[in-house]
Amino acid sequence: MSIFRRKKAAPKNPPPIKAILFDIFGTTVDWLSSMTIHAERLAAEKAINADWQGLVEAWRARYQPAIKPVREGKRPWTDFDTPHREQLDKIIGNFGAAKKLTSADRDLLTHGWHYLDPWLDVVPALQHLKHQFILGPLSNGTTRQMVDLARWGHLPWDIVFGADMFRTYKPDKKLYLGAAAFLVLDPAEILMVAAHNQDLEAAKSHGLKTCFVRRPTEDPEPTATYDYVVDNFEHLAHTLNAF
Amino acid sequence: MSIFRRKKAAPKNPPPIKAILFDIFGTTVDWLSSMTIHAERLAAEKAINADWQGLVEAWRARYQPAIKPVREGKRPWTDFDTPHREQLDKIIGNFGAAKKLTSADRDLLTHGWHYLDPWLDVVPALQHLKHQFILGPLSNGTTRQMVDLARWGHLPWDIVFGADMFRTYKPDKKLYLGAAAFLVLDPAEILMVAAHNQDLEAAKSHGLKTCFVRRPTEDPEPTATYDYVVDNFEHLAHTLNAF
Repeated sequence: MSIFRRKKAAPKNPPPIKAILFDIFGTTVDWLSSMTIHAERLAAEKAINADWQGLVEAWRARYQPAIKPVREGKRPWTDFDTPHREQLDKIIGNFGAAKKLTSADRDLLTHGWHYLDPWLDVVPALQHLKHQFILGPLSNGTTRQMVDLARWGHLPWDIVFGADMFRTYKPDKKLYLGAAAFLVLDPAEILMVAAHNQDLEAAKSHGLKTCFVRRPTEDPEPTATYDYVVDNFEHLAHTLNAF
Repeated sequence: MSIFRRKKAAPKNPPPIKAILFDIFGTTVDWLSSMTIHAERLAAEKAINADWQGLVEAWRARYQPAIKPVREGKRPWTDFDTPHREQLDKIIGNFGAAKKLTSADRDLLTHGWHYLDPWLDVVPALQHLKHQFILGPLSNGTTRQMVDLARWGHLPWDIVFGADMFRTYKPDKKLYLGAAAFLVLDPAEILMVAAHNQDLEAAKSHGLKTCFVRRPTEDPEPTATYDYVVDNFEHLAHTLNAF
């Protein structure tokens, strides 16, 4: 590989993909199993019985409404951990004995969102994709959360983008275009991978290429036309000829 | 490893190191050999003879004066690649036939600063340090430059901080304290590693721990008291019991 290869004249067709950015929660990591296990383990210490999976699902369902005021400028910037902690207090009363968790317990459980296992197809596929593409998360989580998740799950990122770098949340265009600016890439040179139509429709509207990945906990089907639709990250790596 | 280990009461002694941030140019990568080879290779294509090592040394010597106006607010933010390219035009006339390099050649050569080899002790030591510590560059280079250098040299970072994330340059405190904020760490939980006294004195004044590393192209000796003084990164890893 020579660094002195001259650039060819820009093709009229769409430029090739140079970087792939990944949504994290649900797309890359399995928040439902991981958080349910965290909750069960914490509850076991205290001998509390409750529907922990139900609680985690209800908790996750509150995430979009919780960050919306920030995105709309109605609430000053606050990192992802703060609304997570607040929403836990709001829903915990609906889950019986779960409310016996003390404030310190709830802090610990909220911190569990930094330690979520990747879906099993993720790490091998990323290792292959990394040979050809710059890889990174583009997440509504914090930068530190991305670091913790990567260290926990051995995600081989080249770069980490947390929402605190942009002080707003997806689908705000600042995240997609800000990441492109840091990478010194045209948006069309970036592929956004997510299991959520809201994320991909925004990425597409700002000129990124898009890939819908089917995940059991997330949007069941694509609702728009994307460049790729795949069953998992291995399927994506094969589609991009990275194996 | 349980994520539910309760935090112990804060010790009165300095807190343990959680993250290590590394200066890049000269500290982590050998810019002089790498850029000299890049220049020689480019010159060979054109059959131009010149003192390329001398040119690279003169080029590097212009880096601090070039970014100073930005740090002092006298010039609007500009990324690292821009002053690099400008300074090349200013010095190239002093190096004989080197001035035969065209504008396109000079662009390519400037881009060479994204592809510099790590010192030989760097990668093995970082691989060991990564087990215990969050690792990342804290550099006056750009984020994209950090990504390119890491992919070129297989630097196993957990996080990448380029100066464009803070829109100013070290030793401005925004870099040291901004990185600490993204990592949600107290400055005293971060060790700054550099071969430059200016960088370390600034880091120290903002509460970071500091490590001076001796490198043949950089400051010969520490001029202040730092937490650690080491001969190379392997020495640092041994000092921190990372092997």
